[in-house]
Amino acid sequence: MVFIITGLYRKVFILQGLRQITVLGMGLLGSSVTLAVSRALPRLRTVGFSHRASTRDKAREIGVADEICDSLEEAVAGADIVILATPIFTFKSTFEQIKPSLKRGCIVTDVGSTKVEPLKWAKETFSKDVSYVGSHPIAGSEKRGVEYGRDDLLLGANCIITKDRSTDVASIEILKEFWSSLGAFVKIMSPAQHDRIFSRVSHLPHIVAVALTNATSSSDIEYAGKGFIDTTRVASGPSSIWSDILLANARNSSIGINMLIRELEKIDAAVKSGDSKRLTKLLDKACNRRKELIDLKITNGEII
Amino acid sequence: MVFIITGLYRKVFILQGLRQITVLGMGLLGSSVTLAVSRALPRLRTVGFSHRASTRDKAREIGVADEICDSLEEAVAGADIVILATPIFTFKSTFEQIKPSLKRGCIVTDVGSTKVEPLKWAKETFSKDVSYVGSHPIAGSEKRGVEYGRDDLLLGANCIITKDRSTDVASIEILKEFWSSLGAFVKIMSPAQHDRIFSRVSHLPHIVAVALTNATSSSDIEYAGKGFIDTTRVASGPSSIWSDILLANARNSSIGINMLIRELEKIDAAVKSGDSKRLTKLLDKACNRRKELIDLKITNGEII
Repeated sequence: MVFIITGLYRKVFILQGLRQITVLGMGLLGSSVTLAVSRALPRLRTVGFSHRASTRDKAREIGVADEICDSLEEAVAGADIVILATPIFTFKSTFEQIKPSLKRGCIVTDVGSTKVEPLKWAKETFSKDVSYVGSHPIAGSEKRGVEYGRDDLLLGANCIITKDRSTDVASIEILKEFWSSLGAFVKIMSPAQHDRIFSRVSHLPHIVAVALTNATSSSDIEYAGKGFIDTTRVASGPSSIWSDILLANARNSSIGINMLIRELEKIDAAVKSGDSKRLTKLLDKACNRRKELIDLKITNGEII
Repeated sequence: MVFIITGLYRKVFILQGLRQITVLGMGLLGSSVTLAVSRALPRLRTVGFSHRASTRDKAREIGVADEICDSLEEAVAGADIVILATPIFTFKSTFEQIKPSLKRGCIVTDVGSTKVEPLKWAKETFSKDVSYVGSHPIAGSEKRGVEYGRDDLLLGANCIITKDRSTDVASIEILKEFWSSLGAFVKIMSPAQHDRIFSRVSHLPHIVAVALTNATSSSDIEYAGKGFIDTTRVASGPSSIWSDILLANARNSSIGINMLIRELEKIDAAVKSGDSKRLTKLLDKACNRRKELIDLKITNGEII
């Protein structure tokens, strides 16, 4: 007998073994994940943890998860999927601390913005009883904190799942279905490819926004208009998290900065020499590439 | 007898002699100015001109001004204020072309993003019969064209009026009242100060957005999220207009680019050496400065 499993049946089939999702870190993204699970997969029990008592209190008050635990060990016990939503450089020690409490077959993932280092740390820590797969939902805001958690934050967002040759295929399938159920578009690639691409499209915009803000004096900034405000928006993101991201992806960040400096030098040369044709060509290239991007995002339904 | 002229009376008094406003260039900003005049100063006759017949047709169809003329000369005849809303490098030839048709005492201004060169050209062209004062309403959009004109585009926007020692004081007062009536916050400074400040807060964001977009390959760009989209938004602005702006403010643009490169090098050095403390300090500086900016804009009622 052959079963053809499609659509809803496939989803139910793949996720049917799951009972509990635990999210470590109740910031904007962590709390948005538990809220999204409650909305889209209400049968699943959601458990949250934060190392800050004040955040745990707020999380309980808002009701972002079925249960908020006071310890990491208690939070991960019985979880089918554990999701780290804490700063990247906490991952290694968290992996070590939760390891004894994880149930056999548990999938550990994270929502970190770099993927090479977390996989390395997971391999150093976990035995074959635990399956680590990296995730990176491309969703967020310059706002931070459990009070900004939203059950629709992942709707229409891209979510990258990273794998190498040792990654468990069944776990990838489960996570793919899990993130899709929360409304994200899942793409799969290697951690190295992920870190190169996101150093360009995510880390570099942050670096640029910071550099532009710091290059502008406090007295001039009052004349800034909507253009400056939008161009620098991401610079308002939490510095501790972004410092971790850039340092966990240092080589790619540095390559990106130097590519950007080359582009700035091209513009400078055209401006200095009064080469209107060359300058217009550089501006046109950006204008056209951005049009491609916006058209693609509209086609994909990522923006409307 | 002493008259104390305040509030509405002051406005009526200062603008009472005006009968006609002519706007040359029916793009987003030009058509927004005529529409705003019709809304806020309905007693004034609005006349528009575009060198493109198709734009004139559209402008007439939408009804952005009381009259759309087919020639520059016809458009400026009888105007009390003539506003150039065309690309900067058209100003000099436009000044020369309209000069014989301007009525005595006419105020000529513009909405260009640089102010040193236009003043130089005006001084080279006009006699004392005509009063030139530079204006720069900080309003716009990456959209272009008469169809995007809006009568509220100037509401809450800053508008810089530039003057030097030779600028007619009465004309400054009239323009100040004029732009205020359309909902803008007017600030007065020298053309040189304007061009330095706006190279930082307006031209540099554009340069940065272009450089970032051009540093990102077509294949990577599909992974761009909201951060990249916002950081590069202004790069979708019209390249011909922006090429003019950067070239008309070349020295300041180049200084700005090099200040930005120094800031990028600071970040690169911190990332390469793994100096978390130094990196966090740079990120914090930007985060705090941007908070100041946003707080200021909220206090000023420029954003809500």
